[in-house]
Amino acid sequence: MEKMKRAERMVAITQLLMSNPNVLTPLTLFAERFGTAKSTISEDLMAVKGSFQLSGQGRLETVSGAAGGVRYIPEISSAEAALFLSKLAQRLSEKERILAGGFLYMTDLLYDPAVLRPLGLIFASSFREKGPEVVVTIETKGIPLALVTAEALGLPMVVIRTGNKVTEGSSVSINYVSGSSRRIQMMSLSRRALDPRRKVLVIDDFMKAGGTALGIKNLMKEFEADVVGIGVLVETQITSEPKLVEGYLSLLKLRELDLNSGKSIIVPEELLFNGL
Amino acid sequence: MEKMKRAERMVAITQLLMSNPNVLTPLTLFAERFGTAKSTISEDLMAVKGSFQLSGQGRLETVSGAAGGVRYIPEISSAEAALFLSKLAQRLSEKERILAGGFLYMTDLLYDPAVLRPLGLIFASSFREKGPEVVVTIETKGIPLALVTAEALGLPMVVIRTGNKVTEGSSVSINYVSGSSRRIQMMSLSRRALDPRRKVLVIDDFMKAGGTALGIKNLMKEFEADVVGIGVLVETQITSEPKLVEGYLSLLKLRELDLNSGKSIIVPEELLFNGL
Repeated sequence: MEKMKRAERMVAITQLLMSNPNVLTPLTLFAERFGTAKSTISEDLMAVKGSFQLSGQGRLETVSGAAGGVRYIPEISSAEAALFLSKLAQRLSEKERILAGGFLYMTDLLYDPAVLRPLGLIFASSFREKGPEVVVTIETKGIPLALVTAEALGLPMVVIRTGNKVTEGSSVSINYVSGSSRRIQMMSLSRRALDPRRKVLVIDDFMKAGGTALGIKNLMKEFEADVVGIGVLVETQITSEPKLVEGYLSLLKLRELDLNSGKSIIVPEELLFNGL
Repeated sequence: MEKMKRAERMVAITQLLMSNPNVLTPLTLFAERFGTAKSTISEDLMAVKGSFQLSGQGRLETVSGAAGGVRYIPEISSAEAALFLSKLAQRLSEKERILAGGFLYMTDLLYDPAVLRPLGLIFASSFREKGPEVVVTIETKGIPLALVTAEALGLPMVVIRTGNKVTEGSSVSINYVSGSSRRIQMMSLSRRALDPRRKVLVIDDFMKAGGTALGIKNLMKEFEADVVGIGVLVETQITSEPKLVEGYLSLLKLRELDLNSGKSIIVPEELLFNGL
């Protein structure tokens, strides 16, 4: 490859790092790829790091030592998060989104990468310091949300099945009462899907009474997992009844919902990451 | 914001573009954010574009005119795709992955963002020129694969439910025979989830006889959709029986599978994108 100028190299480094978020890349890889000395790459990286610091969209993390290198940590600033959540709350308050049973139609948003990407960054920024090792969710609608969170954190995802559909060797099943249906249901997870004693972050789309979240917590006990966080996109705050779980983070709160008028009030959570 | 040097600005532009893949950003936005003239931003973008061209990891697309701007199209080179698929085939050939019924355990890989990201780019590079408007999949294991493909293409995703679980207004259901279970099953899609007459790309994780894919094609007819492509990660090629659908792309072919020895042979498809 033809020798690059510093600015071109800095762009190429940025592209490589951002294409592999959370992956530690040794300086020698850059030096080899761009045919330059490691000291030159070091200077390039310092400049790239400085440029990232101004953006609030992600930062460069440096790991020193023989096994060291740099990795790109995707982030979102608190200001951007607040703006995004307030716009999302507004979209969810649209009249035609109210479904029978007091639910909000949000499937279109939950399956839209442009909506999911910032949500993944918001959950990641909220829970990164808890040190989760895996992101756990339950099928079906929570999967995309959990995946973008896992991607932003550089972690694998585990999906609990509802019912007893697990065909992958021995599995653990528990019964739970979903707040939405008030019926006893079953959730299952294959033994091979989750190693014992992991730190897990639970992500789901909606919380009504918290029965599903409680079920997941109980299932996690069977894997001796440490639930370091629970994050949901929307929780209902219509009744004053306490939830079945505590200490969760909900990004949006459904305060009022009038089935007759089709009016709902949704309020975003106020977040603050790293003082940004 | 303090005035940036050209190299710093190029990094900041790259970060902004890559954080919003497939989104058209007008030059004025950069000019305002960095406090420079549009002509300066134009020059920066030319240099960024040149730097991207050397990488094969993504390119800058320029749209001219009043409503114009630039967008980042994430890509993968054919060489990188081939290397990735051959490594993935090797991982899937590990002995302990064979499950009863002639299935491969691949859930861990299907839920790992580091594996999914390149797969999404491979599907996107394979189908982008067909002009899909939405990516369609069926729950559960195909969802992450469809999501990363949708993200790489900048499209929304639609998830077909199995059974009749749709609670979102009127829905269309059809029966299909899954090649794996040989039983009649039902799949459903809410009317509001997919506008009529869309160009759809179907993505799924596994194809045995093709019954699920055929079911999806039939369901799509009910929405007057035009199926412009079908992509699956793994297809079985163990029997010589023809599949129930034609013209699909499978990235990996399961050629042999010996339940007794636990040995399997998996061969990657050879792909060529844009001559790269």
